[in-house]
Amino acid sequence: MIKTLEWTDAGVRFIDQTKLPTEEVYVTCATYQEVADAIFTMIVRGAPAIGVAAAMGVALGVRDAKADSVQELRPQFEKICEILAATRPTAVNLFWAIRRMKEKFESVAGQPVDSIKQALIKEAQQMYLEDIAACEAMGRNGAMLLPRSGGVLTHCNAGALATCGYGTALGVIRSAVASGSKINIYADETRPFLQGSRLTAWELNQDGIPTTVIADNMAAAMMKQGKIGAVIVGADRIAANGDVANKIGTYSVAIMAKEHGIPFYVAAPWSTIDLATPDGDHIPIEQRSATEMTHFSGKQITPTGIRVENPAFDVTPHKYVTAIITERGVAKPSYSESLQQLSRNEPVPA
Amino acid sequence: MIKTLEWTDAGVRFIDQTKLPTEEVYVTCATYQEVADAIFTMIVRGAPAIGVAAAMGVALGVRDAKADSVQELRPQFEKICEILAATRPTAVNLFWAIRRMKEKFESVAGQPVDSIKQALIKEAQQMYLEDIAACEAMGRNGAMLLPRSGGVLTHCNAGALATCGYGTALGVIRSAVASGSKINIYADETRPFLQGSRLTAWELNQDGIPTTVIADNMAAAMMKQGKIGAVIVGADRIAANGDVANKIGTYSVAIMAKEHGIPFYVAAPWSTIDLATPDGDHIPIEQRSATEMTHFSGKQITPTGIRVENPAFDVTPHKYVTAIITERGVAKPSYSESLQQLSRNEPVPA
Repeated sequence: MIKTLEWTDAGVRFIDQTKLPTEEVYVTCATYQEVADAIFTMIVRGAPAIGVAAAMGVALGVRDAKADSVQELRPQFEKICEILAATRPTAVNLFWAIRRMKEKFESVAGQPVDSIKQALIKEAQQMYLEDIAACEAMGRNGAMLLPRSGGVLTHCNAGALATCGYGTALGVIRSAVASGSKINIYADETRPFLQGSRLTAWELNQDGIPTTVIADNMAAAMMKQGKIGAVIVGADRIAANGDVANKIGTYSVAIMAKEHGIPFYVAAPWSTIDLATPDGDHIPIEQRSATEMTHFSGKQITPTGIRVENPAFDVTPHKYVTAIITERGVAKPSYSESLQQLSRNEPVPA
Repeated sequence: MIKTLEWTDAGVRFIDQTKLPTEEVYVTCATYQEVADAIFTMIVRGAPAIGVAAAMGVALGVRDAKADSVQELRPQFEKICEILAATRPTAVNLFWAIRRMKEKFESVAGQPVDSIKQALIKEAQQMYLEDIAACEAMGRNGAMLLPRSGGVLTHCNAGALATCGYGTALGVIRSAVASGSKINIYADETRPFLQGSRLTAWELNQDGIPTTVIADNMAAAMMKQGKIGAVIVGADRIAANGDVANKIGTYSVAIMAKEHGIPFYVAAPWSTIDLATPDGDHIPIEQRSATEMTHFSGKQITPTGIRVENPAFDVTPHKYVTAIITERGVAKPSYSESLQQLSRNEPVPA
């Protein structure tokens, strides 16, 4: 199993996703600042993985804080949370994870400092285990939605590398394959960071699931040729009305799927659902460095001084989304209702 | 003015489009085989430029052929034509240009060998001049279709670098700007060969036309944000029913434009219109080397052994095309009728 991230005594250990697929290198972040840097520089990425990485970063920072009392610990804890929260704005799992660590802190604030530290470390490790369990549940819930054969398109990487293991969209794919589906995967390469060609292709290749890498601009042609029977992607934040923020280009894929009559599925853990955000217009979209667009592996690919855009995410309006697969169940339109039902742990009508 | 290609006594001189935008390097092909290689390796690319390059390649090969009679020259001429025709399958301008050189050959076949050689050189140079004139006429015919301000999206490079000068889609943009339109251009980077980020951005930057490079997967997000008021692209072959083969990804852009209610224009010289091909299903689509997808500037970006697809073109069905801008006039639906009218040089009703 791919160890995307891991709590160790020496710090938080990550597979370095900037080095894949040609180098499998692991880095250990010995301080919470190093964890924050790893999130910002995308050594670790993917909304669920970012959430747990941040929780582990908080636990690491608190563990190493010098404090004899909760009064001394609290301002350090708050600063640690603040720095980790400032790494990336779109994936709501980051804020969800930090909020959960804050709640845990308050719930044990009356205990000795060492107990608080142990409780936070345990909470982060618990979130790690819950993330894997959620991915496996998504897999079970979503597997039967995919076609039993033919091509399935995915965009970016919503796999083991985007989570603590198994994956969201790729978890559903893994589960479908495990249950006997003879599907083959088309992976959009996903410019500019190439999560598809570098990461999705790498991890599906490791599992022996047949995978074809295509440029983002080839997906519509593949659909027209009948090569794609379903689309499944992950999410960085899902608003209360079902609008989905995910990797830039997801919206394009959703439009193409609609145009070709192909179902478009989103798989995400409940921590990605943000019922406090009414719709996609209220989701902050991260703008990343121009260098990701102007250079490739150190080589300049645009004329000097040219303007570029580099939004890391886009919003797919809920009308394009066939279903949202979570560990709690599968939400279908109207999402304003079905997501509320899942939030109350009520069954959603099929 | 950018000298994309040029007849010189030493051979056919090209700006090396594989080196742009960081190096402005010119190469002179001293033999017709070198011209064929330049087309195949995309030192020169773009349907109209490929056509004229092939004509100049034919002229060069014939000029240097050792022949004392037309009987000795003809088999050499046919072999030259065959080798140049085998370079790339989709752009119909290649075959159009070679056919025109064959017609010229037959029309002067009764003359002395030296006269035949001179006539073919002159014909290729004439095609060069006609190509520039056609681009300028497309510019005049199409400029008023573009919005007077705001953003215009283009895909791939249909500019001076894709023609003998001025450009097709970018010629229309240049003409609009020259007539006072305050438009800014969004250039899809156009994976995998990056004609947009490397070539379109470079030539528009040289002209001082404000240009923003985006990844192919960002176009829909820009449209939703209201940043794009029109799309204009070139073409490699247009079938009798108006279906348009153009750089891979064009079909995606057309779907996105339709979904956002944005007009989608195609600009192409008459030599790109292939009335002998009934529809897009009959257009051969070139598949290029996997290496273009698996490596970038020598760096491996996919896991070893992964499958990739690399179709160089796709077909946009005519129902997505708002108008086809040619030097003969602007065709609108139904294209089966309007293209026939233009072929007879009849005016097309506005």
